[in-house]
Amino acid sequence: MTVTSPAPVPPAVLDRVDDLLPRALDRLGELLRIPSISGDPAHRADVRRAADWLVNELTSSGLRDAGLLEGDGAPLVTGLLRAADPGAPTVVLYCHYDVQPAEPAADWSSPPFEPTVVDGHLHARGAADDKGWILVHLAALRAWVETTGAPPVTVRLLLEGEEESGSPSLPAALAAHADLFAGDLLVVSDTSMLGEDRPSLCYGLRGIAALEVRVRGAGRDLHSGKYGGVAPNAALVLARLLATLHDVEGRVAVPGFHDAVRVPAAEERARLAALDFDEAAWLAEAGVRGGAGEAGWSALERAWLRPTLDVNGLTSGFSGEGTKTIIPATAAAKLSCRLVPDQDPDAIAALVAAHLRGLAPPEVDVEVEVQHGGPPVLTPTASPAVRAALAAYETGYGVAPALTREGGSVPVVADLVAALDVPALLLGFGLPDQREHAPDERLSLRNAARAARTCAAFWHLLATEMT
Amino acid sequence: MTVTSPAPVPPAVLDRVDDLLPRALDRLGELLRIPSISGDPAHRADVRRAADWLVNELTSSGLRDAGLLEGDGAPLVTGLLRAADPGAPTVVLYCHYDVQPAEPAADWSSPPFEPTVVDGHLHARGAADDKGWILVHLAALRAWVETTGAPPVTVRLLLEGEEESGSPSLPAALAAHADLFAGDLLVVSDTSMLGEDRPSLCYGLRGIAALEVRVRGAGRDLHSGKYGGVAPNAALVLARLLATLHDVEGRVAVPGFHDAVRVPAAEERARLAALDFDEAAWLAEAGVRGGAGEAGWSALERAWLRPTLDVNGLTSGFSGEGTKTIIPATAAAKLSCRLVPDQDPDAIAALVAAHLRGLAPPEVDVEVEVQHGGPPVLTPTASPAVRAALAAYETGYGVAPALTREGGSVPVVADLVAALDVPALLLGFGLPDQREHAPDERLSLRNAARAARTCAAFWHLLATEMT
Repeated sequence: MTVTSPAPVPPAVLDRVDDLLPRALDRLGELLRIPSISGDPAHRADVRRAADWLVNELTSSGLRDAGLLEGDGAPLVTGLLRAADPGAPTVVLYCHYDVQPAEPAADWSSPPFEPTVVDGHLHARGAADDKGWILVHLAALRAWVETTGAPPVTVRLLLEGEEESGSPSLPAALAAHADLFAGDLLVVSDTSMLGEDRPSLCYGLRGIAALEVRVRGAGRDLHSGKYGGVAPNAALVLARLLATLHDVEGRVAVPGFHDAVRVPAAEERARLAALDFDEAAWLAEAGVRGGAGEAGWSALERAWLRPTLDVNGLTSGFSGEGTKTIIPATAAAKLSCRLVPDQDPDAIAALVAAHLRGLAPPEVDVEVEVQHGGPPVLTPTASPAVRAALAAYETGYGVAPALTREGGSVPVVADLVAALDVPALLLGFGLPDQREHAPDERLSLRNAARAARTCAAFWHLLATEMT
Repeated sequence: MTVTSPAPVPPAVLDRVDDLLPRALDRLGELLRIPSISGDPAHRADVRRAADWLVNELTSSGLRDAGLLEGDGAPLVTGLLRAADPGAPTVVLYCHYDVQPAEPAADWSSPPFEPTVVDGHLHARGAADDKGWILVHLAALRAWVETTGAPPVTVRLLLEGEEESGSPSLPAALAAHADLFAGDLLVVSDTSMLGEDRPSLCYGLRGIAALEVRVRGAGRDLHSGKYGGVAPNAALVLARLLATLHDVEGRVAVPGFHDAVRVPAAEERARLAALDFDEAAWLAEAGVRGGAGEAGWSALERAWLRPTLDVNGLTSGFSGEGTKTIIPATAAAKLSCRLVPDQDPDAIAALVAAHLRGLAPPEVDVEVEVQHGGPPVLTPTASPAVRAALAAYETGYGVAPALTREGGSVPVVADLVAALDVPALLLGFGLPDQREHAPDERLSLRNAARAARTCAAFWHLLATEMT
């Protein structure tokens, strides 16, 4: 998409961003050493330690009222930076400081919580998802403060510590502190671009619904010689249940699953098809061969516009070295669906749960636990914020950005939009090969520098567009 | 089965067995503290420690030439006790000193390698499978030595340390030491009876074929948002493969699997049906509801006469606390088949492997590793050894024993029969609720005492029948 005549951004600010970035990355290294894994109760103290670290960082970066908002779960970290012009727009800027687990730790080239620079990339769990962008934003804001005394818009920082666990306590916390988060726009930096030299603005996210299914077939693990042929095998029953989740065309086969799926407009499919996207390279980087997935849709369409149901993990019986000839008493699978408009997470989880329970043979107990969920998000592409963002990417990256959607879920975006009653803009800088949620997650240092310039430019361009 | 006029066993020997048993159980406690898990390479030193302990125990029990036979794997422990009569039969007496893993250790009421007496049962991994019977036999043999100077038959003890791993190095070790194991009969004590007051002699065992199937769908675990819909899900592919292993009637559906299965004679099915066997109580004890397994056969027939294919364990992706929204790169299942005459373990493993490989979709790699195997065993019921054993059970338990088969596998029996070229007798004393291969494995102390009397009587009765 070509952006016409972006308003000029003060060069001194962009230069200052460049000067400030090395220190920001040093500080990031310190934050990455804290294993703030929100999904694992054993790391609760680390999540809090990361929050405390951030309060200190915000304060020393010049933000006012930096502090913690306590709720039922991990604290929210907040801070305020006012524009000089009291009539300037107010933006709520959201990132998250919690991270995914690092398992399997043995598959990392360097320890996941010991940041290591390899070939221009900073490797660590959370480097790209999402701690890196917190420090990039702080550098951009600081550049404004040090150059002109204040940013062109008022920025309320909102840093969450439970995003990777589905933000269970965020809605209540926002409701309790609604006055703090009054504003004109929500900006979320947790999405990806097409590539390091191919900036893009994401206007859609998939939603998510997560479940766990557990099968029990006996009071205890049984000797497979003694009971083989007589006792139900929980692992086999689970396998048979999971095998019913898709049809032979790769389409989710849970009854009702597709009922609410919005059919994408022909114009959108055409725009996707016109994207210069190297599907083969994308799959090769992930070590994936073609041929998987739902028939009748391109790979990008399957990843962005179509819903999924994946197994995230299996556990049953003996998994150690060697053999153990048991009939496992239990078997469990973690499942998650990626959802598209207008699928509702609760409704989809209920459909999947009912499907699995309904197929349980009488000789076993099947239990389905619905875990976190979040609705899909679509942002209107015709708005001042989108215009400002497109111009900002062009400033930071030197090329006009594309418009994209994304297959991932940031359930919090929908929660925030609902709670704050503002439109959302997904100002993301992730790269396709950053390996978030996987071993060797990494942040490109060159991309971080251009992202920081983009952020600095964005505040200026947003003020221009909105006032 | 009624046994007519058992030859009288010297009462002094039986009394001495009773006297010796408490000390034997003390010694057993010491052996049970050694976690000789042959399936886990981390316990290799413990396996050897158990072997050394046994050499010492055999020597102090009066056996000659007690020592280790070294081969590629765990050593064989041997020892000799000669009959006074040089014309007496020679028996090779086999037990094993290795044990199954104790996982899941958290499910044990007491630590698996800290023997604990609860309600007349000694709880520990290996108490019933198979260390308990080693010490019971030693007490019985010692009673003969202390009472009459020697047992009525010559006994060559053969204690193995790799039975739970499929006895990989036993055939080679036996071939290398064939001269040591010349004899008239092989006696193996590693099978079960119908109950504590229902002694029985087992004349058939199922064989086993074990495999592991591994699916790989990507170069690494992938973010399920980014790649969901595009990347193959190794866990789902595995589930679909496993779901093809049985038909809707519960019968193994691998092509060719049943081709070599011998149809049981009507007389044998009638004898099984006439057994006073409480199927409901058997299943209730295991926490198993009816309804599982192959249609058209009784539960006992399914467990004793019919082959099976079970999943022993599943592993894929994330299994920790909370959620991790990945598409697992790999998924693995441990499988094992229980085989009946005349199925061949290698042929069956090849059929299962070919079936799984043949169904692998093109977008994943499926690898099948064939692990240990052993053929099924059937012992002729009309022989002097069986007559002696039936009379011995009646002496030890005070009631006539039944004739049974067993669903478990002692692959080593077939190996021993082939290597030693002698008939085998399965002189087992296991109980249905001894929980071998599961948490809280236990040995009934009352049953151990009666088994010890049975063993002492057996040597006498065998000498009478065979000479």
